[in-house]
Amino acid sequence: MGFPSNIFNSHSKKDGDFFLGMTKILGFKPKKLDYYKRAFLHRSANIKDKDGTPMNYERLEFLGDSMLGTIISKHLYDQVPEGDEGYLTKMRSKIVSRKHLNELGKDLELIKFVQSRIPKTHFGENIHGNVFEALVGAIYLDRGYKYCEKFISQQVIDPYVDIEQLEGKVISYKSLIIEWCQKQKKTFDYNVYEDTGNDTLKHFAVKLTIGGKVMAKARATSKKKAEERASKRAYYALQDRMEKS
Amino acid sequence: MGFPSNIFNSHSKKDGDFFLGMTKILGFKPKKLDYYKRAFLHRSANIKDKDGTPMNYERLEFLGDSMLGTIISKHLYDQVPEGDEGYLTKMRSKIVSRKHLNELGKDLELIKFVQSRIPKTHFGENIHGNVFEALVGAIYLDRGYKYCEKFISQQVIDPYVDIEQLEGKVISYKSLIIEWCQKQKKTFDYNVYEDTGNDTLKHFAVKLTIGGKVMAKARATSKKKAEERASKRAYYALQDRMEKS
Repeated sequence: MGFPSNIFNSHSKKDGDFFLGMTKILGFKPKKLDYYKRAFLHRSANIKDKDGTPMNYERLEFLGDSMLGTIISKHLYDQVPEGDEGYLTKMRSKIVSRKHLNELGKDLELIKFVQSRIPKTHFGENIHGNVFEALVGAIYLDRGYKYCEKFISQQVIDPYVDIEQLEGKVISYKSLIIEWCQKQKKTFDYNVYEDTGNDTLKHFAVKLTIGGKVMAKARATSKKKAEERASKRAYYALQDRMEKS
Repeated sequence: MGFPSNIFNSHSKKDGDFFLGMTKILGFKPKKLDYYKRAFLHRSANIKDKDGTPMNYERLEFLGDSMLGTIISKHLYDQVPEGDEGYLTKMRSKIVSRKHLNELGKDLELIKFVQSRIPKTHFGENIHGNVFEALVGAIYLDRGYKYCEKFISQQVIDPYVDIEQLEGKVISYKSLIIEWCQKQKKTFDYNVYEDTGNDTLKHFAVKLTIGGKVMAKARATSKKKAEERASKRAYYALQDRMEKS
C-alpha cells in the first residue's frame, strides 16, 4: 500500500519501535507493518494514497468489526449449546459493546500509537474501541482468519468474557468489596499497573488496599480480571468480617 | 451431535441422497453430514437433543449470517479501495439483504431439503434466505473459514455481486429488454431451467423468447446471471431495432 515517506520512514527507528510495540500486543510478529500503521491513522492526519484516496483506519474498522463479531459468534455457539438465536445475539452485543471495546483498547493503551493532527486529549471515548477494531482488521489482512481467532481469543475472550458474569448469574467480587467498604466507611484503592515481566503478552498487576492496609495482590492479562482476582482474594480474607456485617 | 434415528437414519438411502444433493450445492464433500442436516431442520419438526435442547437451524443461521457478512466485507474491502466505511456498509447491506438471500436460497432450491411438520407451502419467503445462512453456518463448523470463503465466492459473489449494478451505474439488460417489449407490445418469456450437465456446481440455462421467436440462450451459475446474459445477447441482436424505437 505504501505510505508517504514523511509520515512513516521505512526501516526507521520509529518503525522498529512500532514493530516491537505491535509484537507485544499481538503476541506474534506482523508481516506487513503497513496494515498496522494504517490501523492507527486518524482521519485528521489527512493522508492520501497515490490515487488521492484518504487513508485512515475507518475501512479497517469496518472489516475488524465484522470479523470480531464472527469470532465471538463462534465462541458463543460452541460454549453455550443450549442458547437459542436470541440469546446468542444478546450475549454477542454485550461482548462487543462500545463500552467493552473501549475498555479493551484502553487497557492495551492503543491510543499511544494513533497518528493524528488533533491532540489526543480531544478524542472521545470511542477512539479506543475503534482502533481496537481496526487492529483486528489489520490482522485479518496481514495474517488471515486463524490469527484473528487466536488474537481475539487471547485478548478478548480469555481476559474479558465470563459468560456467567455477563448473564448476571455471578455477582462480581469487586462489587461486593466496594459495597462492603462503603457500608463500613473504609477507604479502598485498586492500584493497577502494567507488569508484563517476561511474558510475551501484556499483563497487569493490581494491589488492593482497604483502610490503608494492602489486602490482596493479583496479576492477569486484563485490568478487569486482575481487579476481580484481587477482590476474590480479599473477599476470602475478609469473609468472616464481611458475613458478620 | 447425533440425531434421533426416526428422523435421520445413519447410512440410509435418504442420507446418501442428501449427501449427493449437498455435494452438488457445496462444490465439495461434507465431512460431518449432521451439521448440514441441522441446517435444514425447521423448529416445527420439534426435535430435541439428548439434553432436551431443541434442535433446529436457528443457531446455525446466527453463525452463518455473521460469517457471510465478514466474507462480503472482505470482498468489498479488496474490490473497492476508494470506498469509505459508509459506502462499504451500504453495499454490504444490499448484498446480504433479505430479498437477495431469499433469491439465492430459491435458486439453489434449498427448501426441498427442509425437514418440518408444517407444509412447505405455509412457509414465508424468508425461509429461503434463512436456510441459506444456516448452510453457511454448517460449512463454518464442518470445514472452517476457507471453505466458507470459497462457497460464498462461488455461490454469492460470482453469480450475484456486480458492484456497478448495485451502485446503479449500469442498467440491467433484462430491464432494457422488458421495457422495449412493453413499448412494442411484444410478448416475452424467460424460460429458465436447471442444466447442470457435467459441471460440479449447479447451473441454469435460459431461453429468451420475444414475440414467439427464440432470441437468445444463455447459461450461468445463477438464474439472474443467466437471464442477464441472455438479455445482453438479445439486446445486441435487436440493437438496431431497439435504438430506432
